[in-house]
Amino acid sequence: MSEIPYKIYLSESEIPTAWYNVRADMKNKPAPLLNPGTGEPLKAEDLMPIFCEELCKQEMNNTDQWIDIPGEILDFYKMYRPSPLVRAYCLEKALDTPAHIYYKFEGNNTSGSHKLNSAIAQAYYAKKQGLKGVTTETGAGQWGTALSMSTAYFGLDCQVYMVKVSYEQKPFRREVMRTYGATVTPSPSMTTNIGRKINEEFPGTDGSLGCAISEAVEAATSQEGYRYVLGSVLNQVLLHQSVIGLEAKAALDKYGIKADMIIGCAGGGSNLGGLISPFVGQMLRGEADYEIIAVEPASCPSLTRGSYVYDFCDTGRVCPLAKMYTLGSDFMPAPNHAGGLRYHGMSSIVSQLYDDGLIKARSVKQTDVFAAAEQFARVEGILPAPESSHAIKVAIDEALKCKETGEAKNIVFGLTGTGYFDLVAYQKYNDGVMDDYIPTDEDIAASLAKCPKL
Amino acid sequence: MSEIPYKIYLSESEIPTAWYNVRADMKNKPAPLLNPGTGEPLKAEDLMPIFCEELCKQEMNNTDQWIDIPGEILDFYKMYRPSPLVRAYCLEKALDTPAHIYYKFEGNNTSGSHKLNSAIAQAYYAKKQGLKGVTTETGAGQWGTALSMSTAYFGLDCQVYMVKVSYEQKPFRREVMRTYGATVTPSPSMTTNIGRKINEEFPGTDGSLGCAISEAVEAATSQEGYRYVLGSVLNQVLLHQSVIGLEAKAALDKYGIKADMIIGCAGGGSNLGGLISPFVGQMLRGEADYEIIAVEPASCPSLTRGSYVYDFCDTGRVCPLAKMYTLGSDFMPAPNHAGGLRYHGMSSIVSQLYDDGLIKARSVKQTDVFAAAEQFARVEGILPAPESSHAIKVAIDEALKCKETGEAKNIVFGLTGTGYFDLVAYQKYNDGVMDDYIPTDEDIAASLAKCPKL
Repeated sequence: MSEIPYKIYLSESEIPTAWYNVRADMKNKPAPLLNPGTGEPLKAEDLMPIFCEELCKQEMNNTDQWIDIPGEILDFYKMYRPSPLVRAYCLEKALDTPAHIYYKFEGNNTSGSHKLNSAIAQAYYAKKQGLKGVTTETGAGQWGTALSMSTAYFGLDCQVYMVKVSYEQKPFRREVMRTYGATVTPSPSMTTNIGRKINEEFPGTDGSLGCAISEAVEAATSQEGYRYVLGSVLNQVLLHQSVIGLEAKAALDKYGIKADMIIGCAGGGSNLGGLISPFVGQMLRGEADYEIIAVEPASCPSLTRGSYVYDFCDTGRVCPLAKMYTLGSDFMPAPNHAGGLRYHGMSSIVSQLYDDGLIKARSVKQTDVFAAAEQFARVEGILPAPESSHAIKVAIDEALKCKETGEAKNIVFGLTGTGYFDLVAYQKYNDGVMDDYIPTDEDIAASLAKCPKL
Repeated sequence: MSEIPYKIYLSESEIPTAWYNVRADMKNKPAPLLNPGTGEPLKAEDLMPIFCEELCKQEMNNTDQWIDIPGEILDFYKMYRPSPLVRAYCLEKALDTPAHIYYKFEGNNTSGSHKLNSAIAQAYYAKKQGLKGVTTETGAGQWGTALSMSTAYFGLDCQVYMVKVSYEQKPFRREVMRTYGATVTPSPSMTTNIGRKINEEFPGTDGSLGCAISEAVEAATSQEGYRYVLGSVLNQVLLHQSVIGLEAKAALDKYGIKADMIIGCAGGGSNLGGLISPFVGQMLRGEADYEIIAVEPASCPSLTRGSYVYDFCDTGRVCPLAKMYTLGSDFMPAPNHAGGLRYHGMSSIVSQLYDDGLIKARSVKQTDVFAAAEQFARVEGILPAPESSHAIKVAIDEALKCKETGEAKNIVFGLTGTGYFDLVAYQKYNDGVMDDYIPTDEDIAASLAKCPKL
């Protein structure tokens, strides 16, 4: 075995040429989406008025283990992939741990996160279908940025509904999207029926992600040649994100490293699902075993404190029903929650794997997350996104356990992105005015009570 | 010759182990620094109360062609270097040019620019000298960020004087610095004599870089165990930045590519000097020939419209005198200038090479720079810093000339960093409210008239 470098870079020829579809190896398939009106399972065709055709097929495909990555997507991947698998030598030294820590760093692109892996795929299929453009919603703007980069590349129109309070208070992401040619509309807007209705009912409202989703879906279905796209939760998104795990595994294999533990942050589940897919695949096929930990915020603990039931995917309740670990579609993390990962439910694939005991989950408090982020930044250089820092926190905890036990475990975690647009949150932490909030059992029970009765 | 990948990555073992000192190969050495009181050339010892010892020696070293990079600096370099040399396939396609365009991308680190290459070296020598900490000034904060990352790594104190208007209006860079443990003080402050004096004379002043330099120098010289550090202009900084050019040249050599043209943006000259050093070295030794173009803003045109004379390095006139292409130390680019590169003078090394006809210079208007930035971002993915975009503008111009002539020139340019913290400027451009300003001959003559009479 050669000496392990700080950064294990694969060559461009080692970028995966097919996405790995973990559903093909799952004995218990993720539960199907249901029609909210009839309660019947949806078919690919039912989704096609909203989503691109090829993506609807990918969404429903529980059987093909590998799906080829089209050459035009591969060409784009070559601009920022393979991403490095970094050996955190400096963090290990700072922690004085016998553990070997590795992180797969997805932040070296202008969108600043792994979101680009799926955005470029979704834009490609929209282009291939001959569409004029796509619509989407965005909160702080990470997904919207990734999508606008991708639509700029393929010459598609991109209409982003951005939650009004973010549009006004976080202008930088908005400007990145505009620089890439996207139209960014503060939501609720006066450009859609649902936006006008909400503006009328709640004058001066700050908007919400639920409302922005509803506007984006309405905009897609009411314009000729448009479809709606989404950056997490869906099976298709986890499929595209499998490039993270495939590259990570190839880099580990190259140096004969067997991961003991794989850690990822989990909001909607796209990064975690992508990172762990090929490793979980080995577990499902009985070829290897790993300890896999999903890390979520204590303020939005869908896996650790939610229920595994059918729920609405959006607060507007216009989307299909999905079976997932959920806190209820009305659940909102406390306003002081700064660390991202604020979706009320978890991807169906991750939910099923968790329910089957293949992965564990842990929740962490946000002040602990930012302390870990700062410690990491100071020794490893990279300023991590708050989301990613959930995984850092648990990786550090586990490395410190190894220090106690003397075990030289191989700990791999996903560093999904950078925190350049999250400095308001860092400022709160630096000023010592960030606090923690953990929802009560009553909070969660109240929102769960509103799940649909099937 | 193998097919050229999108990104040419060297291996970690190919990171240069010595900096290249172009002064050793220059027949006409850069002019020495002068004592502002006596007009006599300064010796290394004269600088030692202000700068670290080893750095003073490097500043004066016109003879050693190579200076070993200490192992601890190399270890840090391994966290973010080698940086990729990228083949801009997508830009070439968009321009429909026969030219081959390459860029050396220095933005893949949290400081977001090449500044880190020198910051870590300066922090290392401060640590080695047993100092407690360093002081510096920063405008928008790029250099301050790089320095705070470096001092965090070596456990040094870092005191940054940040121009007050930037401190208040650009809080994000400030928060990155604080996250890395730096103390950031808005300048003018009440913590130094010069700061108190200026606050008294000009109550409510927004501050200036000149004042922040004076405060940082006073803070360094009035505290036991502190020295002052600077991020550009100096010979030592260009020396450290030679890693950019050495890696670029190694990557080109690896694929048998001979650059025809090398383009870099130029403010103080650290990036340009570092990028071109090994290539200019070949020219000086008669081994090869290149067309080298320094690109500067039309609003701050020190090379194209300044004079090659001794001038003050700072507006406070406390620093040594340097011979350089200068617009006069009182010169200020117009307030609407958004594109960085606002120093009134040019590094002595770059000035001498320019005066000797080894490099050319070109000035570009900022709206053209942002148009080039946007075009680049949309096809190459990366959101470039405004500074870097000066080089992009000229690279595109040259590639379009190749389209006319049919020449397949190899164009190499330096992409010094990312624009994540420059979105106020992008917003102005996106909103169509950015304009251009070119100083009149009278403006420049007036500030040049205040250069010292020797």
